[in-house]
Amino acid sequence: MNPRVIALDAMGGDFAPVETIAGAIRAIQSHSNLDILLVGPPALADTPELQPWLERIQILPATDVIHMGEAPVQSVRTKPEASMVKGLRAVEQGVAHAFVTAGNSGAAVVGAALILGRFQEVSRPALAVLFPAIDRQVVLLDVGANVGAQPVHMLQFARLGEAFARVALDLPQPRVGLLNVGEESLKGGGIMQDIYQLLAAAPLNFVGNLEGWDLPRGHADVMVCDGLTGNLLLKMAEGIGELFFSALGDIPEASTLRSRFDYAEHGGSLVLGVDGTVVVTHGRAQREAIANAIGLAYQALSGELISRTRDAMLASQH
Amino acid sequence: MNPRVIALDAMGGDFAPVETIAGAIRAIQSHSNLDILLVGPPALADTPELQPWLERIQILPATDVIHMGEAPVQSVRTKPEASMVKGLRAVEQGVAHAFVTAGNSGAAVVGAALILGRFQEVSRPALAVLFPAIDRQVVLLDVGANVGAQPVHMLQFARLGEAFARVALDLPQPRVGLLNVGEESLKGGGIMQDIYQLLAAAPLNFVGNLEGWDLPRGHADVMVCDGLTGNLLLKMAEGIGELFFSALGDIPEASTLRSRFDYAEHGGSLVLGVDGTVVVTHGRAQREAIANAIGLAYQALSGELISRTRDAMLASQH
Repeated sequence: MNPRVIALDAMGGDFAPVETIAGAIRAIQSHSNLDILLVGPPALADTPELQPWLERIQILPATDVIHMGEAPVQSVRTKPEASMVKGLRAVEQGVAHAFVTAGNSGAAVVGAALILGRFQEVSRPALAVLFPAIDRQVVLLDVGANVGAQPVHMLQFARLGEAFARVALDLPQPRVGLLNVGEESLKGGGIMQDIYQLLAAAPLNFVGNLEGWDLPRGHADVMVCDGLTGNLLLKMAEGIGELFFSALGDIPEASTLRSRFDYAEHGGSLVLGVDGTVVVTHGRAQREAIANAIGLAYQALSGELISRTRDAMLASQH
Repeated sequence: MNPRVIALDAMGGDFAPVETIAGAIRAIQSHSNLDILLVGPPALADTPELQPWLERIQILPATDVIHMGEAPVQSVRTKPEASMVKGLRAVEQGVAHAFVTAGNSGAAVVGAALILGRFQEVSRPALAVLFPAIDRQVVLLDVGANVGAQPVHMLQFARLGEAFARVALDLPQPRVGLLNVGEESLKGGGIMQDIYQLLAAAPLNFVGNLEGWDLPRGHADVMVCDGLTGNLLLKMAEGIGELFFSALGDIPEASTLRSRFDYAEHGGSLVLGVDGTVVVTHGRAQREAIANAIGLAYQALSGELISRTRDAMLASQH
């Protein structure tokens, strides 16, 4: 089989390009059937660390960068030479099979939608992660693509997450819950009640409202929330894990725990709802997290997760 | 000094009245200068466990209950005999000095505002907790009083939290941060940018946007968010702690960690922005959590935290 080619935004994130390059090298060492297109300034090809790997890591020239603070839509539209835009174009043109970035996540999602196209019936793509709960992986979305999502968008997230759980977790009927301030159907008032009603009426195995502790407890397979909330939850889990592991030190129990629940090492977030495989990891990602994000994109490609999610979502309407 | 009298909603929460009564007994055993008014059916006086304590735990009759799923405003207005309403009236009339409930938190906040009155310039009271971060306690609010808070409400939360941090944590100039999807001032789009601008222009030591990991890391003294997000963050921290402690078992390192970061044992949430001391704990609270919530109310009374917060907030305008 021809190798998978993953376009990596060399200029994305706070530690680019040193950590993105190191992450790329680490990823190809882990996956023999993987090549990387490093999207960034041509001069990157002279990086000493890259010299042994130039057969498998090539440069896709990009002379501009979308910075973290820039407005997503405008930056994607006005910076055709940015590494983010060039990387997504490479996927659109079939030069690469997937795109990975630690850059501006809003721009990555908007760019993916504009350049790769959205699924039918999806107006707002979402960022999804597999969150390690006590006895299962939970599909948590949205974790940062949308702030201020309306009920119709939350329904789209639920349907995307449900379809993704079917194919990625091999669940015939994933349980879908709504993260809310309490269990009762009236909790949260106006907009939360509207969302509850929409989810209850949809062709989903909707288990109702869930509370914050239901996420680590794994009380559903798919948990739906607004992007602001999901982003804060994910990053707080990372911070608490870090705090606990640092307080525990090097005892053996800590390493067991860390291997199961090190939220900091999760492999990034998948963009769900666009016609292509795009993984976003956070701006502070260093080589390990970059390599994990590439690994997630590789797994998604190997399992054809995105096209199968699209098909599962279309099939679930009928 | 005359004992503090705390009215406890005997009928609030999933385990009432067994756990509320047990929590009341535990609380008076911990605090010698504390009496309890147990608000609920007169027949509670016959509870065998209460018999040794009837000098310090008296019954305030209430024949109705506001249930968890009921709409807050309507239930407070139409159920004058509910334990929640009677308990708050006891505070209004000076029969009790504070009110504690594990019942419907929305009704508790609305009831407190209607019956006890709001601070000047506060249209939406908030629920605040002291969250144990690595090197400090962080005032986190709102943790559930308001879903869908508007920018002007978020500014009120920030000012309430800042004033509370001054008096409760004895900080001359508490650092205030906004929980958001990223650090840059444009992050989160429309409403988050509006909130950022309001906070930046207010007489606050505003340190800008914070991310989820900044909460356990203690990167500010006051962190502001919408009630849905705060509630989910708090309960998720509780769930992750539970998961970690259960995985660690009885090793000594776990008990050290637990004594510092057992989010499940935090003493409930204080209502900020109303003229009276009201503590809300969650519906699943059992005796330990009920006793801790009473302990928080007791501490707030002893430190006159609520009236001093009001004064600090008024003073900060000028």
